[in-house]
Amino acid sequence: MIELTPPIDERSDEPIYVQLYRYIRQELTEGRIAAGTRLPSVRRLSGRLGISRTPVALAYEQLQAEGYVRSVPRSGLFTEELLPESRPRIQAGDGTKGLSGGSRLLGRNGEHNDLLNNGTSAKAGPLHQLFIDFGYGAVDWSRFPAGAWRKQLNRCLQPDDGRLFRYGDPAGEPELREEIASYLHRTRGVRCHPSSIVIGAGTYQSLDLILQLIGEGGATMHVAAEEAVNDGVKRLFDRHRAVVTPIKLDSDGLRTDELNDTPHVHAVYVTPSHQFPVGMTLSAPKRLKLLQWAASSGTYIIENDYDGEYRYAGRPIPALQAMDDNGCVAYIGTFSRALTPSFRLSYAVLPPSLLERFHANRHSYDQLSSPLLQQAMAFFMESGGFGKHMRAMRSLYQRKRDALLQALRESLPADGMVRIVGESSGLHLLLTWEGKEEEAMITAAEEKGVRVYPVSRYWLRGEDAPNGTVLLGFGGLTERQIQAGVSRLTEAWLGMP
Amino acid sequence: MIELTPPIDERSDEPIYVQLYRYIRQELTEGRIAAGTRLPSVRRLSGRLGISRTPVALAYEQLQAEGYVRSVPRSGLFTEELLPESRPRIQAGDGTKGLSGGSRLLGRNGEHNDLLNNGTSAKAGPLHQLFIDFGYGAVDWSRFPAGAWRKQLNRCLQPDDGRLFRYGDPAGEPELREEIASYLHRTRGVRCHPSSIVIGAGTYQSLDLILQLIGEGGATMHVAAEEAVNDGVKRLFDRHRAVVTPIKLDSDGLRTDELNDTPHVHAVYVTPSHQFPVGMTLSAPKRLKLLQWAASSGTYIIENDYDGEYRYAGRPIPALQAMDDNGCVAYIGTFSRALTPSFRLSYAVLPPSLLERFHANRHSYDQLSSPLLQQAMAFFMESGGFGKHMRAMRSLYQRKRDALLQALRESLPADGMVRIVGESSGLHLLLTWEGKEEEAMITAAEEKGVRVYPVSRYWLRGEDAPNGTVLLGFGGLTERQIQAGVSRLTEAWLGMP
Repeated sequence: MIELTPPIDERSDEPIYVQLYRYIRQELTEGRIAAGTRLPSVRRLSGRLGISRTPVALAYEQLQAEGYVRSVPRSGLFTEELLPESRPRIQAGDGTKGLSGGSRLLGRNGEHNDLLNNGTSAKAGPLHQLFIDFGYGAVDWSRFPAGAWRKQLNRCLQPDDGRLFRYGDPAGEPELREEIASYLHRTRGVRCHPSSIVIGAGTYQSLDLILQLIGEGGATMHVAAEEAVNDGVKRLFDRHRAVVTPIKLDSDGLRTDELNDTPHVHAVYVTPSHQFPVGMTLSAPKRLKLLQWAASSGTYIIENDYDGEYRYAGRPIPALQAMDDNGCVAYIGTFSRALTPSFRLSYAVLPPSLLERFHANRHSYDQLSSPLLQQAMAFFMESGGFGKHMRAMRSLYQRKRDALLQALRESLPADGMVRIVGESSGLHLLLTWEGKEEEAMITAAEEKGVRVYPVSRYWLRGEDAPNGTVLLGFGGLTERQIQAGVSRLTEAWLGMP
Repeated sequence: MIELTPPIDERSDEPIYVQLYRYIRQELTEGRIAAGTRLPSVRRLSGRLGISRTPVALAYEQLQAEGYVRSVPRSGLFTEELLPESRPRIQAGDGTKGLSGGSRLLGRNGEHNDLLNNGTSAKAGPLHQLFIDFGYGAVDWSRFPAGAWRKQLNRCLQPDDGRLFRYGDPAGEPELREEIASYLHRTRGVRCHPSSIVIGAGTYQSLDLILQLIGEGGATMHVAAEEAVNDGVKRLFDRHRAVVTPIKLDSDGLRTDELNDTPHVHAVYVTPSHQFPVGMTLSAPKRLKLLQWAASSGTYIIENDYDGEYRYAGRPIPALQAMDDNGCVAYIGTFSRALTPSFRLSYAVLPPSLLERFHANRHSYDQLSSPLLQQAMAFFMESGGFGKHMRAMRSLYQRKRDALLQALRESLPADGMVRIVGESSGLHLLLTWEGKEEEAMITAAEEKGVRVYPVSRYWLRGEDAPNGTVLLGFGGLTERQIQAGVSRLTEAWLGMP
């Protein structure tokens, strides 16, 4: 282990973690720290420097995310052998880990740019080296209503009756379920009684519950799903040992006609508001057809409405659940996009048959979302704070999306080779450049300091995946970063062979 | 639906929810509300009365827990047909739902008494009707360090770098893992690097992860387990389709000699510090034997140390993990007993082989514990607040346990027919009364207004379950309640045929 003695300037505009990160990176790339060296622990280095642990942890994670150091279980962090050009490893493909799960490693998930751009973006010099990350998982945390939340949490942290310091209701706090039922009715047309809502600690936990309830018969579960689904969904299908039939996507969503040729399935998994990752919306005729087919074949529809709150063009499209008269739809929503992923709050709206199974209690579901955060969320919704936040975020993201679309249209060739899809809702879109290779596009972008993400990995049948298509999330970037990012992308891709 | 017009006196010493609960119960038992009537929704009644929703929700839940009303999915709460004597249904067996999961329904889990005893315990009259609940799941929330937590949460709710408003590290916040590693080393002898800790949102999520990692080979999982395990553990074994071999328990824990006759298993599940539910501690020679057997047979040991912090007699016994030199032990701990179950915070310490599988990322594990609460917990530990809290709680629970033991010894016959086991650690003990039936003991207690809990349901092989044995938790009761409860129990049981 070595001792590090970075010069820390607490009065600098540059945050301490950035100073630390830069220092260690420089020591490494200039050969003053050898490969295979163990770095001091976070505790030790922060103690030595007389600073808190957070900046040290942040700097270490950034170095790790960029491949300068790696973590050895039970031993600590070790420096890596660097390539001659000292270029960090490309970690493409890690940036879109979850609808609700995901990785905090900076440099993944569209969050890394914050580390270096905050407080330094006005500086000259190293700016051109900083990554602009079009990751999918990022939301604009700078607008988080921290004051309101401090108030609501303080209100909950009064041990009056102690209710919030015990195990919560297995289905979630009643107050929050009431607020969600009313919110979903107003904004998504969802029709439900609060008692049919089960709170979860993230989309994947809610999906896991629904799959458990559907699969309760014990026989092998058969599901149909949109041909492209998020990783975590795939992993849950695997976990439930489900036999999965992929259904092709058209520009207006799932090919519902294929459903009739599908052997009997217990459920079909869809993202009708904003298909993940492709981004199209399921058309009204197809919605009706899907619901009719589900009712007549006795199939459940699992509707994952992960970012249905954000729609920029046309009328708001209600959830599929809103049109379901036969108790077929199990609906999933989350506060991860609408507010923050860090409260771990999602919800499932169960149809009567699944609700009954939930209460029969043969599943292994456990309420994993904190009653305290649930109650604070209920207060926040009741106070009107959430509605206000959503209105502000909707117009904020609309401006970001507009900036991205405008920049792309102004910079990229209008020869019909470049297409954009999925831009009318959500926090990401796809860009296809005919004749180019996905991996080459990502590498070229990376070389110009921009991260964009692959989509082919989401296809259930690899051979059906599109080529020359990348995913661009815009939730976590400023308009200025978006413009700079697109200009670098244009340079990168126009210069490709 | 009826409208209710309860007289609410906001200046009364009696909390509003108690007033509401009493009013509705009286209307019901005196026949002014018919069976099958729908009660107004929480929202509606609180609106009508101009009070917040919490007291209404609390009163409703208490009525539901006591069987006066029942919830009909998608419709609301309906009043029940009452027995002639208006006695609530006995819900024995629901009070011990989880090591970390559990039910908040008041009247279950040892929490119900708080509703009526708070602020009313000095009153004469109805006091004799109030239940004293020796539920297992209760901790003393009245000592929750709310001030310190308000401070730490406010500190976390500063969107400086936004880190706590994003997805967290999949393994948990680094700061918390450092604090836990150091805490476990000091208090439980556990030897681990922070990087081998994975934060979970409760014991069951941590156990689920460990079972996923152990079972990754894909073949049917075979596990051995103490012959009595908690419900949630059973449900997780079911979920993993594990073939379970129960191992008998002696007064010094697991019969390790039976392990040699057990067909090969992938893991053995144990609660060595305080067997759940029986309460004995695994003896030192058996610990060594278990570890040797695990190392030589290549078996994992899953150690659930759910309340190892509380030990009242003799030297503190380190965790099994502390003696493991071969990477066999996967250790689980929780903050549910030590602080509160409502933060949903647990941790697993993984041996290198399982840690490697965790990072290979083929599991469906998702970090479900809030990064915000994780960071606040780290701050709370770092500040010394947690250590202080633990010292206070340890002596508080010791006094409660002493009060319970003393009351039991003074009141119950010393003829050798009554035995107490598991009293040297944790927050519950077992009482066996030879010649009596478990169910009859519970019913007799219930009739005197005391809830004690069955244990036979925990046995993996029903026919091995003991008879005449009940579980008494004491964490959530005051010393006065404990004394009153024991005196009622004595009356109840001595009067049994």
